[in-house]
Amino acid sequence: MPAGPRSSSPRHCTGMMTNQEFRARAHELADWMADYLEGISAYPVKPGVRPGEILARLPLLPPEHGEPFDALMADFKQIILPGITHWQHPMFFGYFPANSSPPSVLAEMLTATLGAQCMSWTTSPAATELEERVMQWLRGMIGLPESWEGVIQDTASTATLCSVLTAREARSGCAVNARGFDGSERFTVYCSTEAHSSIEKAVRIAGIGRQHLRTIEVDEAYAMIPASLERAITGDIVEGHTPLAVIAALGTTGSTAVDPLGDIADICARHGLWLHVDAAYAGSALLLPEYRDLLAGIERADSFVVNPHKWMFTNFDCSAYFVKDREALLRTFEILPEYLKTAERGEANNYRDWGVQLGRRFRALKLWFVIRTYGVEGLRERLRSHCAMARGLMERIRAEGDFELLAPVPFNVLCFRYHPPGLEEPERLNTLNAELMERLNSSGLLFLTHTKLNGRTTLRLVIGQTSVEQTHVDTAWEIIRRTARELSR
Amino acid sequence: MPAGPRSSSPRHCTGMMTNQEFRARAHELADWMADYLEGISAYPVKPGVRPGEILARLPLLPPEHGEPFDALMADFKQIILPGITHWQHPMFFGYFPANSSPPSVLAEMLTATLGAQCMSWTTSPAATELEERVMQWLRGMIGLPESWEGVIQDTASTATLCSVLTAREARSGCAVNARGFDGSERFTVYCSTEAHSSIEKAVRIAGIGRQHLRTIEVDEAYAMIPASLERAITGDIVEGHTPLAVIAALGTTGSTAVDPLGDIADICARHGLWLHVDAAYAGSALLLPEYRDLLAGIERADSFVVNPHKWMFTNFDCSAYFVKDREALLRTFEILPEYLKTAERGEANNYRDWGVQLGRRFRALKLWFVIRTYGVEGLRERLRSHCAMARGLMERIRAEGDFELLAPVPFNVLCFRYHPPGLEEPERLNTLNAELMERLNSSGLLFLTHTKLNGRTTLRLVIGQTSVEQTHVDTAWEIIRRTARELSR
Repeated sequence: MPAGPRSSSPRHCTGMMTNQEFRARAHELADWMADYLEGISAYPVKPGVRPGEILARLPLLPPEHGEPFDALMADFKQIILPGITHWQHPMFFGYFPANSSPPSVLAEMLTATLGAQCMSWTTSPAATELEERVMQWLRGMIGLPESWEGVIQDTASTATLCSVLTAREARSGCAVNARGFDGSERFTVYCSTEAHSSIEKAVRIAGIGRQHLRTIEVDEAYAMIPASLERAITGDIVEGHTPLAVIAALGTTGSTAVDPLGDIADICARHGLWLHVDAAYAGSALLLPEYRDLLAGIERADSFVVNPHKWMFTNFDCSAYFVKDREALLRTFEILPEYLKTAERGEANNYRDWGVQLGRRFRALKLWFVIRTYGVEGLRERLRSHCAMARGLMERIRAEGDFELLAPVPFNVLCFRYHPPGLEEPERLNTLNAELMERLNSSGLLFLTHTKLNGRTTLRLVIGQTSVEQTHVDTAWEIIRRTARELSR
Repeated sequence: MPAGPRSSSPRHCTGMMTNQEFRARAHELADWMADYLEGISAYPVKPGVRPGEILARLPLLPPEHGEPFDALMADFKQIILPGITHWQHPMFFGYFPANSSPPSVLAEMLTATLGAQCMSWTTSPAATELEERVMQWLRGMIGLPESWEGVIQDTASTATLCSVLTAREARSGCAVNARGFDGSERFTVYCSTEAHSSIEKAVRIAGIGRQHLRTIEVDEAYAMIPASLERAITGDIVEGHTPLAVIAALGTTGSTAVDPLGDIADICARHGLWLHVDAAYAGSALLLPEYRDLLAGIERADSFVVNPHKWMFTNFDCSAYFVKDREALLRTFEILPEYLKTAERGEANNYRDWGVQLGRRFRALKLWFVIRTYGVEGLRERLRSHCAMARGLMERIRAEGDFELLAPVPFNVLCFRYHPPGLEEPERLNTLNAELMERLNSSGLLFLTHTKLNGRTTLRLVIGQTSVEQTHVDTAWEIIRRTARELSR
C-alpha cells in the first residue's frame, strides 16, 4: 500500500518500457476503457471524498526506481478512480458537459502516439491542413460566413482573450503591442451581467482593467438589453472613454440566454466597436437549422467561439475560434524568431501565430473522427434529442405545484428551483435549494450544479451528456422530486 | 477515395459507435500504436509534401451521414500519416523534442476515457490532489525550494505569461487588474538577446509593450551579462521607468546557454525586480546532481518553468510552473462567479485560479505514470545518456577540420556549422549551411533545425528523443558529414 512516504521500492527497471510490454498494456487498457464506459453507471457521479483524502494516500516521495505497471494500475484503480468525478456518466447534469465519444477517444489514442507538435506547418503538415479543413467544415456546419477562418484553441477562455487582444491591437493600430499602454487609450468593454467570467479575466490580462468592463443589464429572459448597451457606450464616450468591444453571449453560462445579436451588431457598427460572440456551449445548436436565426447579424461580428469539447462529443480540449479578419489576428500574435523560420511561410498556416501558445497538440484529428463517425445528420439527431428531452422535462417542471422554472429553456439547460407553497422568504428558499443540491450530489446518483438568477439560488440541469437517454432524465427528475419533498418535511 | 468535394456518402449510422465496436477498435488501435512505435524508423522523419497537398485530398464538405471506422482509418493511414512530421522518430533532432514514452501514452488513453474537467477540486478531486502531489515530487526532484508550489500549465508560453502578469499585479498592488494601465506604470522587462520569443509575446499581451522589453547582451557562451543587465535597469530608472521583471534562461532555445542565476538574483534583489526562470527545456537536467549548481540563487527567484513534455518523456502538454508566492498568483487570476462556487473553497486547490484558462485536462496522470515507470534514477540514466552522447558528438565535431562548434554544449544540444577551409565569406557560409539543412531534412533520414548565433546560420542537433541511441547519433553524423562534403563539391 503506498500510504505515507516511500523509503525504497523494489528495483524493476530503469529504462524504457519495452514495445512488447507497451502492446500488451495498451490492449489491457483497451479493455479497461471499454469496461469503464460500459459500466460507468455503477460509479457514484461525484465521489464521496473529502479534501486531502486522496493526497494522503499518495506517497510523499517519488520512487527512486521504476515500478511495474501492475502496481501503477492498481493504484490508479484504488486511489485515483474513487476520487474522480465521472464527467462521462449519463447522470452528469452539471456545469456544461465536457462530453466525449468513442471516435474521439480513439483519435486521442492516435494523437498521443504520434506526439506531434503542431505549432507550424513544417512541424506537422497534415495536422495543420486537417485543422484548416475541419475548421472549414465546422464553419459551414454552423452557418458562419464563408470568408471567416478558424483555428482550434484550447478553451473559450483563451479564444475570448485572443479576441479582446485583437480588438485592442486593431483599435490602437498595434500601438499597445508596440509601446504598451501609455494612458492615451481609455478602453471600455461590454458584456451582459450574465456573461462568462472569462471575459473579466481577459480584460484584466489585457491591461484594460476590470473597472472598464461594463456589465449591461438583462431582460426577463437574461438576455442583454440593447438599449442599455447603447446608453452605456454613449455615456462612456461622453466621459472620454474609447468603447472597444462587446462580447455577446449565444447561450450564457447561467441559463443559456441568447443576447440579441442583430441589435448588438447594429450598435457596434454605429459606434465602431469590435464584436465577439461567445457561443462556447450553445453554438453547437447552430448545427440545427431551427436555431440558425440566432445567428442573424453574424456577418457584422468580428469573432466567434464554440467548443466542440462541450456539446459536440469531442474530447477536451477543442475550442473552435473563428475570425473575420485573419490578418488582424496574426498582427496581434505573430512572432518570428530565427529558430522558427521555415521555407513555407506565406504558403501555409502557422497556427502558433493564431493565438497565445507556441506549442500545440494535434487537436483536429479528434474533431475529424467525430464529424465523420456521426455525420452531420447524426450530430443533429443527437442534439435534437437533448433539446427534446429538455423540453419534456420543462413541461413536467411546469406541471408541478412545488417547483418553478426560473428561466426560459432555449436549448437543453433547465434552470429551476424547489419552491414549496407558502415558503416565500428569499433566503430560506435559497438555503433550501442549496441543501437540495448538496443532498442530491452527495447521493452519487446524479450530479448537477447551481447558479444565481436575480438573486435566487437556481439548480441547473444540463441534458447534454453523450450517453444521456430519456430514462436517465426520468430517473433524475424522480430523485429530485423525492429528495426535495423529503427535505422540506 | 475522398478526393474533392463529397456529394453524398453511404448511410452507415447516425447514432453513437456501440461499446462493442469501441472495444474492438481500441484493440485495433492498440496494435496500430505498438506497430507504429516499433516501426517508426521506416518513416521519413519529415514528410515530402508541399503546402496544400494534404488539404486537396480532404473533402470540401463534411459527410451528412456517419461513415464506417474502416474508412476513417484508411484515410488516416493514406492521407494524414504521409503528411506527419514524426516527432517520436529516433532521428528527430530538431527544435526541442516533444518526447513521450509508453507509460505516458498509456496514461493519455485513460485521461481521454475519463474525460474529466480539472478546473476545480470538486470537478475532479483525485486529479487535483494528484497534481498537487506530482508537482511536489517534481519540485523535490529538480531541487526547487520546498516552500514553492506547482501547477501544470499547457505550455511555457502560458507559464511565462502567468509570471509576467503576476509580476505586474504584485508590483501595482493589483491596480492594473482593477483599473487597467493609466499611464502611471512605466514597466520595463528584461531578458537576454537569446531568450525565447514567448517573453516578447507575454510582454505584448500584458500591455507592457515590446518597446519596454530590454534584450540584454550575452557573453561568448550566449549567457546574459549581469553587468549589462544592471546597467539597463539603472538606466531605465533614471529615465523614469519602473523595472518590473527579469526572465533568466536556464537553457536558451538557441544553444541552451545558462544565464548566471545567482548574479541576476542579486541584481533583482537590489532593485526590487521579479525574477522568472525559464528552464522549459534544460530544467529536466536538474534531475542530475551534477547540474544542480546551476540553480544557485533560486531561492531569491519568484517563479520557474520546466516542461516535462520536452525532455522528461511526458506527452505534450505538460508544463510545470512553480511559484514562490501562491497568493500572488491567485490574486492575479482568481475569479469566482456563482456557478463555480463550491463548498470546498479554501480546503483544496482550485487550479483554474492558477492560470489563464478555466477548463483544464487531467494532465497529472501521465506525469505520475512516467515518474513511477522510470523511477527517478531511471529518468536520470536516460538524461545522462543523452548528455554523454552529446559530449561524444561534440568531440567528433571538434576533431573535424571542416566543421566548427558555434556554442558550448552544456546539455545535449549541439550548435555547429559546416565550414570548409578557405570559405570565409559570412553570407556564403550561411547559405551553404541553410542548403545543408534543407538537403538533410529533405532526405527524410533525419531532421534538425537551425538558429542564428552572432549572425551565423547554425545547425542545432538535439539528442533528447526518448528512443535515441548511439547508433542513431552515429548515423546522423555520418549523413551530415557526407552530405556537407557532397554539397561543397
